[in-house]
Amino acid sequence: MKLNKQLVLKKRPVGLPDKDTWELNTIPVPEPGDGEFLIKCEYISLDPAMRGWLNDVKSYIPPVQINDVMRAGGVGKIIKSNNTDFKEGAFVYGQTGVQQYAITDGKGFHAIDPNLAPLPMYLGILGMTGMTAYFGILEVGELKEGNTVLVSGAAGAVGSVVGQIAKIKNCKVVGIAGGTDKCNYLVEELGFDGAIDYKNDDIHDKLKEYFPKGIDVYFDNVGGEILDLALGRLAMHARIVICGAISQYNNTSPVKGPSNYLALLVNRASMKGMVVFDYAKDYGKAALQMGQWIREGKLKSREDVYDGIENFYKTFLRLFTGEKLGKLVLKVSEN
Amino acid sequence: MKLNKQLVLKKRPVGLPDKDTWELNTIPVPEPGDGEFLIKCEYISLDPAMRGWLNDVKSYIPPVQINDVMRAGGVGKIIKSNNTDFKEGAFVYGQTGVQQYAITDGKGFHAIDPNLAPLPMYLGILGMTGMTAYFGILEVGELKEGNTVLVSGAAGAVGSVVGQIAKIKNCKVVGIAGGTDKCNYLVEELGFDGAIDYKNDDIHDKLKEYFPKGIDVYFDNVGGEILDLALGRLAMHARIVICGAISQYNNTSPVKGPSNYLALLVNRASMKGMVVFDYAKDYGKAALQMGQWIREGKLKSREDVYDGIENFYKTFLRLFTGEKLGKLVLKVSEN
Repeated sequence: MKLNKQLVLKKRPVGLPDKDTWELNTIPVPEPGDGEFLIKCEYISLDPAMRGWLNDVKSYIPPVQINDVMRAGGVGKIIKSNNTDFKEGAFVYGQTGVQQYAITDGKGFHAIDPNLAPLPMYLGILGMTGMTAYFGILEVGELKEGNTVLVSGAAGAVGSVVGQIAKIKNCKVVGIAGGTDKCNYLVEELGFDGAIDYKNDDIHDKLKEYFPKGIDVYFDNVGGEILDLALGRLAMHARIVICGAISQYNNTSPVKGPSNYLALLVNRASMKGMVVFDYAKDYGKAALQMGQWIREGKLKSREDVYDGIENFYKTFLRLFTGEKLGKLVLKVSEN
Repeated sequence: MKLNKQLVLKKRPVGLPDKDTWELNTIPVPEPGDGEFLIKCEYISLDPAMRGWLNDVKSYIPPVQINDVMRAGGVGKIIKSNNTDFKEGAFVYGQTGVQQYAITDGKGFHAIDPNLAPLPMYLGILGMTGMTAYFGILEVGELKEGNTVLVSGAAGAVGSVVGQIAKIKNCKVVGIAGGTDKCNYLVEELGFDGAIDYKNDDIHDKLKEYFPKGIDVYFDNVGGEILDLALGRLAMHARIVICGAISQYNNTSPVKGPSNYLALLVNRASMKGMVVFDYAKDYGKAALQMGQWIREGKLKSREDVYDGIENFYKTFLRLFTGEKLGKLVLKVSEN
């Protein structure tokens, strides 16, 4: 009998998740029912948004319930199918959850081709991460050629793609990241025009230096003090894309609201929130464009892959300590 | 020799302005030079934005300088003219400053007709106040028929017009104001669908009651806690118009940023700043439309007129104590 290790939510965390937040259970692999299929999960995606799903609050999707398998995007192979749209042997992406085997009726799943790109890339630049960057900077940020662009969390999965897309659009791009290695990566490998090390630089001074005429688009993944500093440096008619606020996700005190928000008034600027699912109908078009840029060598991706479903908790924390580069992925399959 | 009383900025206030902020000087009325004309000022406009002009910070216009006449919009009669575009005897609106006589080359001034409407109305609904409301709710707020609309500072000059325009557009409109009298005024005289008394009501509960499906457009004149509560009640794709933040203008501590700003993300909502001057080229069109609504009885205005340039300081403070209804105007002319 095949066994399925699955990670179950046991306790809603206050602040950073800890060892009691989840529990790893081992159960028999179930049989797919009518219209369902069984996936052997290979990799799952680790994203800052997952922290939000642990809170029992109204949000863009319902929270994960106690005793439910932890929600996660994953890629894997169909090993048994009672669904004519999904054949045995095919590889798929979808919300598998953090487990080694998943059963689904196929809703929200789509086929992927492991011969075109390695599986982890389908969780990063070719997946929701890439889509978030694409629609966030181009649609929500209303990016125009020649704009000045600031990205926070710039060495992260979304931020690194946002910055590269803005470079493709002939923008001046500066990224904020933590540490010299990440900053070097942005400038030397990804072609950013500049990088600000939030751990060592004076962000205020650096923003002044890099943006003498102000920031046209600020793509915000972090919130907190950096959002305030960016607000203090906006150009007229600037757009701020609120994609996330990783600095605030583990707060035990209230979220820090941006004190400088009246800069929106002074600069006739806007601050707009986004959730990638809204763009689902255009994923196909975006994927074609992203694929072309990747083939042309204009868009690079980096996946930081860790191994072992039992390491979920400590790997997940890397999102918040910053000990990772690019897209954080966990291999959950064994042998 | 005719004398001109003028109010001059002496000291930048910390917190609320006080008696030492301005000084009333009396000087001879000057002669207009080449291309200039002399205005006998009748009324000046008192606006919350004037508080911002006292701070020595970069904003949408430069601060008033120490020893300069306090900036203000005003209406008056041309009593001597060396400018062929502006005839003696005509009435004009423009930045006269807080004084009884003003000299100008006519830049930013335009003629008004005291036979069509009383002079104070040109400082309110027919002036910048009305324009701010018009472009703020229709353009920045992207108002659509049937939207649910919340307005703060709703019994004020801008707020009361915003709410009425939204009613004309068949929206459900709720206003927030301080005290029973103002709330009654909104509902009984202006036709708002509801009013929330921020001094006595539980705003959170009232918002829940009035907006079971959320707020489509929030027009914010006040900032602070009310902005946070509105953020907590947004509908999907909501728009927040940041017109002002009167609760924060006299702060001696940092501005309170909106803790709930991540509601923008959850609801794919936007928060956008505005400055009315950007719409100058369309003032004419807007004024025609507003005039028609006024004639049809769909749009009402109220001016709260006080007398005496020597009463500027204590009248100005009414903006912040809330002891006024509608547009606050000061008569500066004598006899």
